[in-house]
Amino acid sequence: MISIETVMKNLTIEEKIGQLMQLAPFFFIGDLKKEVYGPIQALGLKESEVFLSGSVLGIGNASEMKRVQQAYLEKSRHKIPLIFMADIIHGYKTIFPVPLAMAASFNPTLVKKAARISALEAQTAGIHVTFSPMADLSRDPRWGRVVEGFGEDPYLNQVYAKAMVEGYQHDGIDKVGNLASCVKHFAAYGASEAGRDYNTVDLSRLNLHQYYMSGYKAAVEAGARLVMTSFNIVEGIPATQNKYLLRDVLKQDWQFDGVVISDYDSLRQTIEHGTSENDREAAKKAILGGLDIEMATSSYVLNLKSLIESNEVPMALLDDAVYRVLKLKQDLGLFEDPFKGADEIKEKTFVLSDENKKVALEVARESMVLLKNDGILPLKKTQKIALMGEYVALTDTIGPWHWHGRHEDCIPLYEAISEYAKPNLISNQNTLSNLSETEYAGLLDADVVVVAVGEHKIESGEAHSKVNITLKPQDEALIDALYQLGKQVVLVLFHGRPLVLTKVEPKVSAILDTFFLGTMSQQAIAETLFGLNNPSGKLTMSYPRHVGQVPIYYNHLNTGRPFKNDGNPFTSFYLDEQNTPLYPFGFGLSYSSFKLMNLTLSTQKMTEKDTIIVSVDVENTSNIDGYETVQLYIRDYSAEVSRPVQELKQFKKVWVKAHEKVVVSFTISEQDLVYVHSDLSVYADPGKFSIQVGNASNQILKADITRV
Amino acid sequence: MISIETVMKNLTIEEKIGQLMQLAPFFFIGDLKKEVYGPIQALGLKESEVFLSGSVLGIGNASEMKRVQQAYLEKSRHKIPLIFMADIIHGYKTIFPVPLAMAASFNPTLVKKAARISALEAQTAGIHVTFSPMADLSRDPRWGRVVEGFGEDPYLNQVYAKAMVEGYQHDGIDKVGNLASCVKHFAAYGASEAGRDYNTVDLSRLNLHQYYMSGYKAAVEAGARLVMTSFNIVEGIPATQNKYLLRDVLKQDWQFDGVVISDYDSLRQTIEHGTSENDREAAKKAILGGLDIEMATSSYVLNLKSLIESNEVPMALLDDAVYRVLKLKQDLGLFEDPFKGADEIKEKTFVLSDENKKVALEVARESMVLLKNDGILPLKKTQKIALMGEYVALTDTIGPWHWHGRHEDCIPLYEAISEYAKPNLISNQNTLSNLSETEYAGLLDADVVVVAVGEHKIESGEAHSKVNITLKPQDEALIDALYQLGKQVVLVLFHGRPLVLTKVEPKVSAILDTFFLGTMSQQAIAETLFGLNNPSGKLTMSYPRHVGQVPIYYNHLNTGRPFKNDGNPFTSFYLDEQNTPLYPFGFGLSYSSFKLMNLTLSTQKMTEKDTIIVSVDVENTSNIDGYETVQLYIRDYSAEVSRPVQELKQFKKVWVKAHEKVVVSFTISEQDLVYVHSDLSVYADPGKFSIQVGNASNQILKADITRV
Repeated sequence: MISIETVMKNLTIEEKIGQLMQLAPFFFIGDLKKEVYGPIQALGLKESEVFLSGSVLGIGNASEMKRVQQAYLEKSRHKIPLIFMADIIHGYKTIFPVPLAMAASFNPTLVKKAARISALEAQTAGIHVTFSPMADLSRDPRWGRVVEGFGEDPYLNQVYAKAMVEGYQHDGIDKVGNLASCVKHFAAYGASEAGRDYNTVDLSRLNLHQYYMSGYKAAVEAGARLVMTSFNIVEGIPATQNKYLLRDVLKQDWQFDGVVISDYDSLRQTIEHGTSENDREAAKKAILGGLDIEMATSSYVLNLKSLIESNEVPMALLDDAVYRVLKLKQDLGLFEDPFKGADEIKEKTFVLSDENKKVALEVARESMVLLKNDGILPLKKTQKIALMGEYVALTDTIGPWHWHGRHEDCIPLYEAISEYAKPNLISNQNTLSNLSETEYAGLLDADVVVVAVGEHKIESGEAHSKVNITLKPQDEALIDALYQLGKQVVLVLFHGRPLVLTKVEPKVSAILDTFFLGTMSQQAIAETLFGLNNPSGKLTMSYPRHVGQVPIYYNHLNTGRPFKNDGNPFTSFYLDEQNTPLYPFGFGLSYSSFKLMNLTLSTQKMTEKDTIIVSVDVENTSNIDGYETVQLYIRDYSAEVSRPVQELKQFKKVWVKAHEKVVVSFTISEQDLVYVHSDLSVYADPGKFSIQVGNASNQILKADITRV
Repeated sequence: MISIETVMKNLTIEEKIGQLMQLAPFFFIGDLKKEVYGPIQALGLKESEVFLSGSVLGIGNASEMKRVQQAYLEKSRHKIPLIFMADIIHGYKTIFPVPLAMAASFNPTLVKKAARISALEAQTAGIHVTFSPMADLSRDPRWGRVVEGFGEDPYLNQVYAKAMVEGYQHDGIDKVGNLASCVKHFAAYGASEAGRDYNTVDLSRLNLHQYYMSGYKAAVEAGARLVMTSFNIVEGIPATQNKYLLRDVLKQDWQFDGVVISDYDSLRQTIEHGTSENDREAAKKAILGGLDIEMATSSYVLNLKSLIESNEVPMALLDDAVYRVLKLKQDLGLFEDPFKGADEIKEKTFVLSDENKKVALEVARESMVLLKNDGILPLKKTQKIALMGEYVALTDTIGPWHWHGRHEDCIPLYEAISEYAKPNLISNQNTLSNLSETEYAGLLDADVVVVAVGEHKIESGEAHSKVNITLKPQDEALIDALYQLGKQVVLVLFHGRPLVLTKVEPKVSAILDTFFLGTMSQQAIAETLFGLNNPSGKLTMSYPRHVGQVPIYYNHLNTGRPFKNDGNPFTSFYLDEQNTPLYPFGFGLSYSSFKLMNLTLSTQKMTEKDTIIVSVDVENTSNIDGYETVQLYIRDYSAEVSRPVQELKQFKKVWVKAHEKVVVSFTISEQDLVYVHSDLSVYADPGKFSIQVGNASNQILKADITRV
């Protein structure tokens, strides 16, 4: 193995600084003349400086990767290979459900499997690093990027961030087939004010550490090799140059020895933020703050040398950053094989293989959430079924952030459903007036109307925030028209964020919430509609009754004047709406019916070293086998700082056969009782705790314990 | 003058603790048997403990005050008089506009005058302390208590908090006719999450000190003798027992030597917050935290003695709190005259006198905001006018928090308008279908329809939050019906919070925004409609286009990716709404037309010790004399922490005669450039600043200066 120290000794200061710059592939293999007068000029770079870069952002395929690496190595004095990084968010070409949907599975094993296949597929193109997982806690459905995250719960963020890192990095990033994981966006990007992307973030350190940090920290603890800084400010300072976040917390407290990379252009954007007067100050504050690689900008390359020469920046900080980048290259095995992973043959045989699509189908099955069912689902093949709404034909169900994914790999929903039944009417219209006479007759004759509607993929994702999060007016009108006709409606929803369904909910018989389920979306939905799959997903974000309720989340504090519906007018409530969401966190139905009972505790008192076994009987009172996710919440009644009315601490997803009963047990230990105190130290206090076990955050059995 | 030290020496520990309890008047003069089994029992008090109380919350009138004080002194061993405190928010019986409306006047002198008269009236009832001003910065119109505050701007909060304290306390609280002022709610109560009253507050210390503290601090600096703690938590700890807020910031950094009082029941509510296991812990954390008086609870009386005996609380803390209370009594002159101020004769002659009502009218005139006018206003006596909407008859225009105010003292709008014209139709209906044939004919014949609608007073104020802040559907429908009929509509708005007027705005010819203008509301409106008053108010809160935009405020940060309408899709915006409000901060029209021009600066460079004179010509290009409020905003382009795109620093309200021009000048000094740095220290940095002068936050002339 090469010695990084030796490599570094031979590097000029310019060569060192170059390692900290990341550019797109065309810089290296494009029409150089064009680039020089275009982006290279925009970055103020000379051609020679381009070829000092340390890494590449995004790559098309194995052959392109090889061309880029080849071109680079030819011009590079020390032949230090480029790292290829890319956005593999929920699949490479086999697209899995969007993360918000995968989270609903409450099945981290499955999510890990999805990440594993994403890594295997992506590496065939020579990709070494993925900018995933996104571990941004979010409580605001207006924010478009909730689709990329796991929802509003710190514990789930932790569980899934870990699962994805383990899925990507698997048995080591040195091995072919594994990706290094870059967790993002550090930190608190999900708290964008008014749910508008890139907007101001402001929170207390207590809040930051108590709730928002969990996902990033879990990813780092699971070995994530990179951390991406977020676009937002924290305490007035952009994350990209925030010393408290990057040096004090991440590199010092968490002992993170990997690479910190900016988000796209986020270093230069500190000028817009107003914390850098110019590029030079941007570079200075970033390197002092703890940023290693700058993505898509040239502030370091153009300014670091002079900053070091003027003693404004210690050489040791540059060396540390470069060391981290080179160490990543070494650990990835790039010095041994600069073309690692790139494999044109596997690209054809393995990517989007039937085997991979089977796993995508498996994940999709568990990622949808049944929000309502008056008994109409599952459909029977003998029923007369009408299909309406644009998603009957629209195959664009792979979500807003898929890059190499293609919606052409999805089949239309009507085709998937045709496997099971011959519909009376197939129409992607959302008005009845446009139906032909025959179609209208088919509609009238139908026993049930499946309405497949929702958001377009471009309505969520980066920069895609909305103030109005209901269904489109025309879709609400269609549902109303069918309701007025006396039709039984099964609403199949496609979307990237929690929606306000208050108006339509009473008018439909069933709601199957499918988010964007990826390549195998329609197959999974059809299976489910006809009962071959029993839905088992649970929401990981609250669905508000009205956008005026946001931010809304289950793990809120009690306040000093909680609403108790006791007639006291001076409580925390709205005059014109309930406090609760329409659908709460942890909620999701099944074709089975489950009854939770007999909450028992092995003891009611515990010391720091004890554990308590909590058990509950889960009875499937129906004729249908199914999964139930049993959720353990804890409330700390009294603490040094105010604690939530409930917090998810553990969960178990169990398969219960029809008319059978299983016992689900949890072991509560000190770890479940700890919290962040006002001095940011983490431990548990003696006192009373509420143990809450249920199959939704608002359907719980309770018992108290005392930590002595 | 008595010596407080001597008084304290003679007090038992129970007597000392008693001084820290505040109870309602009926405890002292009610049917004692009834009280003992009612509230006294609920508080766990013995009768003897009641008569150790230090102060009283609320009082009916002078004779009741005398009875209570008499009853108390008879049973009190040391004859230490009670202080009488009450909620005099915007007037005692002569009700001035709600604070949010008064703020729109941009006339602190007028506001001070209102406070002065409030004090003079209230003291005739023997009231010594008012729980006012409310200096809670708020950026969320869902929150019902925005009506009690001055809006979203830190500087305005500062200006008005000072004006009100000076109005109440005038030439000294020892003098008859002056009240001691209790500023509230310390701290950051206005940042209630999701605009729901009493809800969680979370912000960084930077945000707290940069923006939210300004009003409280200004009040303390102006000599406010009391500070009320807020219901919310800050950094997880209820304000009522928050040592950082009460001891570190208020009592130490700000050198506040007055009395800290809880809000109603807020000490006991720390149990609901989950930071106190029980009343005893509540008392302990509060006294350690820095709370002096507990309002309407008995945690101190029941627990402090034992906490001191067990050495959990140092005696010195109790002594300090008691000293503060006794010092206030001494400074109020209560030891000399326990019945100070109570004056049954003045109660009849001075309270609600014509003279006072004249001032109320004067304030009301300047507190309304003309939001739209296509030229229809002012109305002409010769025009045929129809009046519609419930506020044509409803006299309840004194706002949600007036206590001794009576809406019977207001006259109906139709009556006020009848002074100027004989309307074709007078109807408080909000549908056309309910009109009689004659009425409908009157409507059809009218040249203009004045529609007087809005919120009821109970829709804003404490605990009165809303998710939907549009007009009522029936009022929107009325406006639409009139629009469809082709009628010219003048919308006169009554309300306590910024409303979403997006739907109705294009359908009306004029909007006169009157909030709740108090006792002389209707007279002021009628005068204005007919041009005897030229409206001059400016909004102090942004009026959103959609509730999904909140929180929304003019002094926001730039973000790293500000929306520039340049086609870049990756900026901070909403897919379905603009970023800007419908009506911005500082906006308000006049019957005059003003043109601002010739922005000139005495120099473009300044040192720490220099000043720059900024001048602008204000030309009244119309035939009507009027006020214009010229606003000076500053932006710090680059700083240690991200700074707002604009911040109000100064303003001048000038009277400009028709077709005349005046020069308005501001002097910019170091004080206008300072800001709170990340270590919370306050100073200015060298660099470039933008100077923005305009008559609304979005209508500005700009120039840059450099602080060298």
